[in-house]
Amino acid sequence: MKTDMLTDWQPKLLAIAVAQPHGDGAHDLNHLHRVWANARSLMRAQADGAADPLVVMAACYLHDLVNLPKNHPQRASASRLSGAAARTGLQDAGFPAGRLDGVVHAIEAHSFSAAIGATTLEAKIVQDADRLDGLGAVGLARLFYIAGQMSSALADGADPLALQRPLDDRRYALDHIMVKLSKLPAMMQTDAGRALGEQRLARLMAFRQEFAAEWTDAA
Amino acid sequence: MKTDMLTDWQPKLLAIAVAQPHGDGAHDLNHLHRVWANARSLMRAQADGAADPLVVMAACYLHDLVNLPKNHPQRASASRLSGAAARTGLQDAGFPAGRLDGVVHAIEAHSFSAAIGATTLEAKIVQDADRLDGLGAVGLARLFYIAGQMSSALADGADPLALQRPLDDRRYALDHIMVKLSKLPAMMQTDAGRALGEQRLARLMAFRQEFAAEWTDAA
Repeated sequence: MKTDMLTDWQPKLLAIAVAQPHGDGAHDLNHLHRVWANARSLMRAQADGAADPLVVMAACYLHDLVNLPKNHPQRASASRLSGAAARTGLQDAGFPAGRLDGVVHAIEAHSFSAAIGATTLEAKIVQDADRLDGLGAVGLARLFYIAGQMSSALADGADPLALQRPLDDRRYALDHIMVKLSKLPAMMQTDAGRALGEQRLARLMAFRQEFAAEWTDAA
Repeated sequence: MKTDMLTDWQPKLLAIAVAQPHGDGAHDLNHLHRVWANARSLMRAQADGAADPLVVMAACYLHDLVNLPKNHPQRASASRLSGAAARTGLQDAGFPAGRLDGVVHAIEAHSFSAAIGATTLEAKIVQDADRLDGLGAVGLARLFYIAGQMSSALADGADPLALQRPLDDRRYALDHIMVKLSKLPAMMQTDAGRALGEQRLARLMAFRQEFAAEWTDAA
């Protein structure tokens, strides 16, 4: 794989991505760039071999082509719809035909709700790269940004750490760290993804403790 | 000052505070509790003497009684209006008359936009305590929560650190750290407030660097 081919394809992939409506500040093109940046880190760290970077890059940029809200009835199909839309867009753009299936599989398998196992190294890398984005500093900012958009609470007034109540991340933004983010490292598909995920989660957990200490340090 | 008096007054102050409309998740009663918790830390650290804790507590709980949006024409008068409302509420509740002026001054002087200098130790502590809340983990969460409510962007796509452009925290949430929060420690009125503010700011600056590294690490 020549770097040239990646350089050639990146703007074409972006063009396909921007042709779809994106709106809010949390799911924008920067998310796609970050996922691709994460994927490159994971590929550099990959001891056992050789993911196809063009397939990974295409899947990173097109994995959210069809983005449905969490409460949408077709939510579980969004990654399949994204895969189909990506296939069409890539074919139209003259993407190497032999690599299309690899891209589509990586897109379909990236999502939680689709419940499709990632069977290729490329798909594993894309899935880990996408999940890593939720665990970083930007992921933390997105968590509270989305809570603001939905007007949920920052945290439970009396029990921010949910010591005496069930977790509820629809009501309390802080709960999302435990409900979802804390589970991501163990679900990572690559060793590098797991290691980086654990590092980032440790920082989120420290943030959570600090938040709770400030929040409840009142007589 | 007996602790009993504080214990007696805290629920009465809360009752005055909740009688005012509060709405969003960022400016709620928890903010008042955190400001009072900060104020107690500052009082414990106060080498040179003796703030009146009842005055401090009353001002902490009532400082936002009248809370106007940033673009409201009477915004600069909000702290004066809060002071007047607090005086009435406290009088009705039988607050010690000799301490009313101290509470009202601390409330009036806490706000940036009022431009009233804090002349008493109590007012200095309340101002620092309120500003410290913007610099902690909860402050960071609030920053992005409010950005989500206003649908501004998380950060500038190409230049999150504003290396080549003017800062603009109405468009970019991340810019708020430099536009406002980074200036708070130097404006603190007590030594303890400044020390704690600098500590917290260092963590926010580290977050900002991390955010920017994730955000721009794309080819």
